[in-house]
Amino acid sequence: MARNLLPLAALLALLAPSPALAQASAAIASGKVAPSALSPGEIVAAAPKSEWVAIPAADLLVMDLTPDAKAKPRRVVIQLMPPPFSQGWVGNIRKLAAARWWDGLSINRVQDNYVVQWGDADGEDKAKARALPTGLVVVPEASYSVTIDASTDAQMVAAAAGSVESLSGRDAYADTTSWLNGFPVASSDGAAWPVHCYGMVGVGRDLSPNTGSGAELYTVIGHAPRHLDRNIALVGRVIEGIEHLSSLPRGIGALGFYETPEERTTIASIRLGNEVPDLRAYEYLSTESATFARYADARANRRDPFFIKPAGGADICNIPVPVRRAK
Amino acid sequence: MARNLLPLAALLALLAPSPALAQASAAIASGKVAPSALSPGEIVAAAPKSEWVAIPAADLLVMDLTPDAKAKPRRVVIQLMPPPFSQGWVGNIRKLAAARWWDGLSINRVQDNYVVQWGDADGEDKAKARALPTGLVVVPEASYSVTIDASTDAQMVAAAAGSVESLSGRDAYADTTSWLNGFPVASSDGAAWPVHCYGMVGVGRDLSPNTGSGAELYTVIGHAPRHLDRNIALVGRVIEGIEHLSSLPRGIGALGFYETPEERTTIASIRLGNEVPDLRAYEYLSTESATFARYADARANRRDPFFIKPAGGADICNIPVPVRRAK
Repeated sequence: MARNLLPLAALLALLAPSPALAQASAAIASGKVAPSALSPGEIVAAAPKSEWVAIPAADLLVMDLTPDAKAKPRRVVIQLMPPPFSQGWVGNIRKLAAARWWDGLSINRVQDNYVVQWGDADGEDKAKARALPTGLVVVPEASYSVTIDASTDAQMVAAAAGSVESLSGRDAYADTTSWLNGFPVASSDGAAWPVHCYGMVGVGRDLSPNTGSGAELYTVIGHAPRHLDRNIALVGRVIEGIEHLSSLPRGIGALGFYETPEERTTIASIRLGNEVPDLRAYEYLSTESATFARYADARANRRDPFFIKPAGGADICNIPVPVRRAK
Repeated sequence: MARNLLPLAALLALLAPSPALAQASAAIASGKVAPSALSPGEIVAAAPKSEWVAIPAADLLVMDLTPDAKAKPRRVVIQLMPPPFSQGWVGNIRKLAAARWWDGLSINRVQDNYVVQWGDADGEDKAKARALPTGLVVVPEASYSVTIDASTDAQMVAAAAGSVESLSGRDAYADTTSWLNGFPVASSDGAAWPVHCYGMVGVGRDLSPNTGSGAELYTVIGHAPRHLDRNIALVGRVIEGIEHLSSLPRGIGALGFYETPEERTTIASIRLGNEVPDLRAYEYLSTESATFARYADARANRRDPFFIKPAGGADICNIPVPVRRAK
């Protein structure tokens, strides 16, 4: 089940933007460091190998859709959410993948500027629904966020507020936003949670107190629907191949559901990465690294030649964490 | 050319969220009004006809793409930006449409989580480029925003800050966000400008000081790229048919450009709405109306049955202005 308390080291990392980020921004603000005229992409491309963090294959979920109309393969690679968040659901998803539960099911819903959803199209019909594997846990709503030790909360919020203006105290949904283990997180009132940015993967559910098993999944294909934060579990993010989902025809039924089976795209298989022999290796840019600090600063203050007016800030979902095939 | 000064009435409307919105939120906060358990959509559906504002056909730009693979028509309807913003470019676009300049050109770029762009695929090649109509104006960079009279600025910012916490002082890109004439706007330091939300339409350009003519257009199909605000002109928004753009295959060239002509989608025609006999009539929910205030509050604080944790805020692009076919 999901852990409800963070170890102190995680706490310190959580609410303060990384020390490197604060340091880089402070140095730029003080005039000691010339602001980079490189684009965010150029900054990331120059990162030393040591700043990239390998993503274990066992933490990837690989969805192969049936080939498209031109017989091209369609592979979607998802990185599962690391602790401390959502581990109950992630455990269920590992069991579902091991049981090959999704094979032959389908993409059932594509709602423009919102989500693509997949799972059992007959899931609501008890007579037709595919049986779930045994051993899935029921995760409580309390696991949508993790509780932060109260005595250190004020201190951490203050540290965050004093560091990078663009990322502190200017989020419409939370007191603070930052990153933890390479994932975007938000925090208020002693609790922290992952946030619904483009490409994040969440768990469909019925009305409360249902929290979903993890069998029904969706990914965000539009403007960050942050109102879903703390209302639905987030279990990962698409790191490659999201275009195979975001470019699917929109459903014209309510909520973007397809109205006929023919409109659905079939899932050939969903496997954990360590079960996929031909899978590439992936790595993400450490959100604690100096390069990430420069990259985040550049996303908030574009100084490359195209731009004439740096924004002076950026919301957490407009600073996507760089992920690439390992070099 | 774009106007650089707002009349006083527009100024007062600009920076303060509408009085109705402030009033509704204050009433809810004080406990005098029970928060609505209706969904945002249900609230909008109950709006009286008097709160809907007709959009003149002459302020619409209608792009008909060639039919899709199943011979279905693909119509994209764009509402042009009203004054005081971007009127130089909007005037050019009216001339380009009147000259039928876009007919037979194409969608040339689809970059995931970013933009779809259309215009002359050969525009960079002087030998092949289609000649522009005469009479297009060159719009200065100063027109990316409008200057607000300095003596009233502080007063307006204070009014906004005191009204709706979810919309004031918590934007990463500007001091204040609000709406003007039904369009989302932001403001800082005495200037105001339209913002890059999902579906907004902007003007492609070369490096500064080029500002683009309006011949090369794009629409946002991902998380709001607010870093483009004040760096590119915004000239309208898609109000119907964006799925015909957002579901197109992504280009695999740099910046999502298609690498071969075969990948492009042909534009059958682009016309001003008053030149399209079979065009529907459209209307938007007045952003000054009491219903819009309740709707915005509900977007920021979802209380309908699915939600267990209202967010307590929303960013400007997560409160899309309702637009519908006129009833």
